Amino acid sequence: MSESAEMFARENGERFVAELKELLRIPSIATDPARVGDVRRAAEFCRSELERIGMRRARLVETSTEEQIVTGVDGVSRVVPLRLGHPLVLAEWMEAGAGAPTVLCYGHYDVQPAEPLDEWLSPPFEPTERNGNLYARGAVDDKGQMWMHVKALESLFAAGEGRLPVNVRVVIEGEEEVGGEGIAAFVRAHGEELQADVALVSDTEMFAPDLPTLCVGLRGMIYTEIEVRGARTDLHSGMYGGAVPNPFVALAQIIARLKDETGRILIPGIYDTVQAPTEAELAAWRALPFDEEEYRETEVGSTELVGEAGYSVLERTWARPTLDVHGMPGGFVGAGAKTVIPARAVAKVSLRLVPDMTPAETFDQLQRYVGEIAPKGVEVEVRLIHAGDPIVVSTDNVYVHAATEAMRVVWGKETVFVRGGGSIPIVGDFVRELGIPTVMMGFGLPDDNLHAPNEKFHLENFHHGIQSILGFLTRVGAARQTEAAERDNGR
Amino acid sequence: MSESAEMFARENGERFVAELKELLRIPSIATDPARVGDVRRAAEFCRSELERIGMRRARLVETSTEEQIVTGVDGVSRVVPLRLGHPLVLAEWMEAGAGAPTVLCYGHYDVQPAEPLDEWLSPPFEPTERNGNLYARGAVDDKGQMWMHVKALESLFAAGEGRLPVNVRVVIEGEEEVGGEGIAAFVRAHGEELQADVALVSDTEMFAPDLPTLCVGLRGMIYTEIEVRGARTDLHSGMYGGAVPNPFVALAQIIARLKDETGRILIPGIYDTVQAPTEAELAAWRALPFDEEEYRETEVGSTELVGEAGYSVLERTWARPTLDVHGMPGGFVGAGAKTVIPARAVAKVSLRLVPDMTPAETFDQLQRYVGEIAPKGVEVEVRLIHAGDPIVVSTDNVYVHAATEAMRVVWGKETVFVRGGGSIPIVGDFVRELGIPTVMMGFGLPDDNLHAPNEKFHLENFHHGIQSILGFLTRVGAARQTEAAERDNGR
Repeated sequence: MSESAEMFARENGERFVAELKELLRIPSIATDPARVGDVRRAAEFCRSELERIGMRRARLVETSTEEQIVTGVDGVSRVVPLRLGHPLVLAEWMEAGAGAPTVLCYGHYDVQPAEPLDEWLSPPFEPTERNGNLYARGAVDDKGQMWMHVKALESLFAAGEGRLPVNVRVVIEGEEEVGGEGIAAFVRAHGEELQADVALVSDTEMFAPDLPTLCVGLRGMIYTEIEVRGARTDLHSGMYGGAVPNPFVALAQIIARLKDETGRILIPGIYDTVQAPTEAELAAWRALPFDEEEYRETEVGSTELVGEAGYSVLERTWARPTLDVHGMPGGFVGAGAKTVIPARAVAKVSLRLVPDMTPAETFDQLQRYVGEIAPKGVEVEVRLIHAGDPIVVSTDNVYVHAATEAMRVVWGKETVFVRGGGSIPIVGDFVRELGIPTVMMGFGLPDDNLHAPNEKFHLENFHHGIQSILGFLTRVGAARQTEAAERDNGR
Repeated sequence: MSESAEMFARENGERFVAELKELLRIPSIATDPARVGDVRRAAEFCRSELERIGMRRARLVETSTEEQIVTGVDGVSRVVPLRLGHPLVLAEWMEAGAGAPTVLCYGHYDVQPAEPLDEWLSPPFEPTERNGNLYARGAVDDKGQMWMHVKALESLFAAGEGRLPVNVRVVIEGEEEVGGEGIAAFVRAHGEELQADVALVSDTEMFAPDLPTLCVGLRGMIYTEIEVRGARTDLHSGMYGGAVPNPFVALAQIIARLKDETGRILIPGIYDTVQAPTEAELAAWRALPFDEEEYRETEVGSTELVGEAGYSVLERTWARPTLDVHGMPGGFVGAGAKTVIPARAVAKVSLRLVPDMTPAETFDQLQRYVGEIAPKGVEVEVRLIHAGDPIVVSTDNVYVHAATEAMRVVWGKETVFVRGGGSIPIVGDFVRELGIPTVMMGFGLPDDNLHAPNEKFHLENFHHGIQSILGFLTRVGAARQTEAAERDNGR
């Protein structure tokens, strides 16, 4: 079946791209209240295609909109939409027979905002091919990769005359770029509807062009706000400067004590549960085609890289906890001069976590330490905004073997195992709520401009990705049949 | 003449307040482009009244509007009005005769914005009397105090049958609350039109109710922006955290080294030219009715006061340099979580200066030191946004004597000499460009809510202020006549 599916995919490749372009033309920006209709249109586009190719129960599941009244540092209260409540797309095909494994295919149809628009060489929502790439917002993150799943399934249905080699559930969310709370709630409340043996997520990238890659680890996160309050109201820095605590100065003093100038985090206990990668893993990372100076120059552009001494860039970004400040709202941020000592100021501070750190313990350590180092004259509050567990998945199971074997055939190379510095919270939810492993098999490239202008997807990767995915699904089905046969034979 | 002028002022006091209310109804908010017409209406209101009472050449002088294209930390370029170009009101009466001194009366007719509106007990532009106070935006800062000048002049004209005891020039600006660049340019270019022997500024406050006060020192200022640049573009803190410099962390490290936790500034050389107040001055400050704990509780509201050890609050805010951070634009400041490592971030940092510090030298010291302490991996730029000299005026001259004598008669008390922690840049311009001293005789009260909701002017102070000012002008005239007579007598 795999061979004729491969052929179907090859013969229909141009149509697959044409359909993807249609999807990419829909500006399904999850965070933009003006785009609620477009987001739903993208959901419906996916749902109807899943139905057309032969999936059962293709449906939209609503997630709820949430609002919250937030008082800004300017003292003004506003109704803030926490989530706009974009629907999930669900579908399934569960007719592979007794003992057949079930694969849960995950993707998302929402995209990041496209700003700054004037840096796009072609408009973000007019998909354009150049140099073998397809340029559009969402091309690789994640519409193009999600569409690989749909098209791999279509090819398998075609080759199997309406049957798939495994049971498949599909869940496509519309809020990945805005926190993914809808799917998280759904997994908690209706996990049985997603029950499977393994999840397949294509929302990551290849370490280098033509280098098949599985992502086997992700960092976790706590995202916090540290709020410092000094005087009762904003005061004039001329009249009061020298007597009144300045919340920004206090925050600076706190932040300067969170991390030393080498990048080492100074929060007591923070490294206690950090697990070092295995020697084999470190050796594999050292063998990856990665040049720190080139990375600095082409990807980062700063005068120097920074971070903990004694660790490579890959170790620092994949296997070490880090701390960053994202913004410091409060006070006067307009052009020119306003001489205010603000009554309060906030620092948005996050930590990335690695195994076996936990968000709860890390937040506790941060909160306690900030309380200890807070300078006199100010009150300090540390609030948890968002949290996610770090993940490391096993590289030694039937699903990983199926993936690496499928990719070896398509790409003609052995798969490398990497980790990601970021978080894909749903992977943690799949582990925790469904008790299943995830295969993170992504086909983006490091220069695909995720979340940036001129996002692209290399079209060869789109087609190779479809082949890899249908190969994976076929092999998962075959592997389980082999296991079952062996079991029946009493081995 | 003084006695009949006093009587005229007393008899016409109610009308004076009614006129002031009319002026206060005009929302002449200098910073608001929508209020340009109102600002001009307020200017014309002042001009026509100066003409009516007998001043010559009452006129509006245009200042130019300036715009600048500013690129924000969000990368968006905007046209920012630097100044809206509100007119100066000028008038003069120069017929006091040979050898008569000339007094330059300064005030401003523009006001601060009134927000937050919902905290006003009566609308900001509907002047309302309660408990002997007149509540309105601009009541004390500075329409009410400026109006005292106009009404003192009217009373003197009435008593002198169209003559004043001294030559008088009046300049009333409409941009004091937005930087006062128009008047500064005018003083530089047309200083001869303001030439005088002394300036009278009523834009300060009394140290305590019923305590006649002259302000004899003001701090100077440099207002700067420290910009830190790390990576070329904003990067994802998951993928890059641990390898890429974070501009906010770098700014925090810099700020934490600008000032220690006791409030002492760590910039080398910063205290080298600081002149301590005289022992007499310090003794006088100690004798002032001032309780630090009450100040903390009623004015500040922080859990503790801060600042350099070994100095009283009055010394720290009047006679010591201080450093404050006003805002830190850049990165993500919205609600919730965005995991960005911003490419750049800015801290708005000002220093208050005391004699004999100079803005140029202080900026140079700051710039050099920030360059030295900047952490690796980032580029740092320090920009000067605004500067003003510190001022200390002599308390031993004929004009100060005239002022203290006038106030002693009106208030029945000796005058106290205080300094202000803030800056009134025009006073420096008068010294530097016109070479004249300024008498800062203000009648606000510490709880008048300048720049805040429920701004007020105590009406008794308005009336006593008019008496004090007309007494001052009369005595300046008489003193010079005495001097001249003494000179003629060969003494």
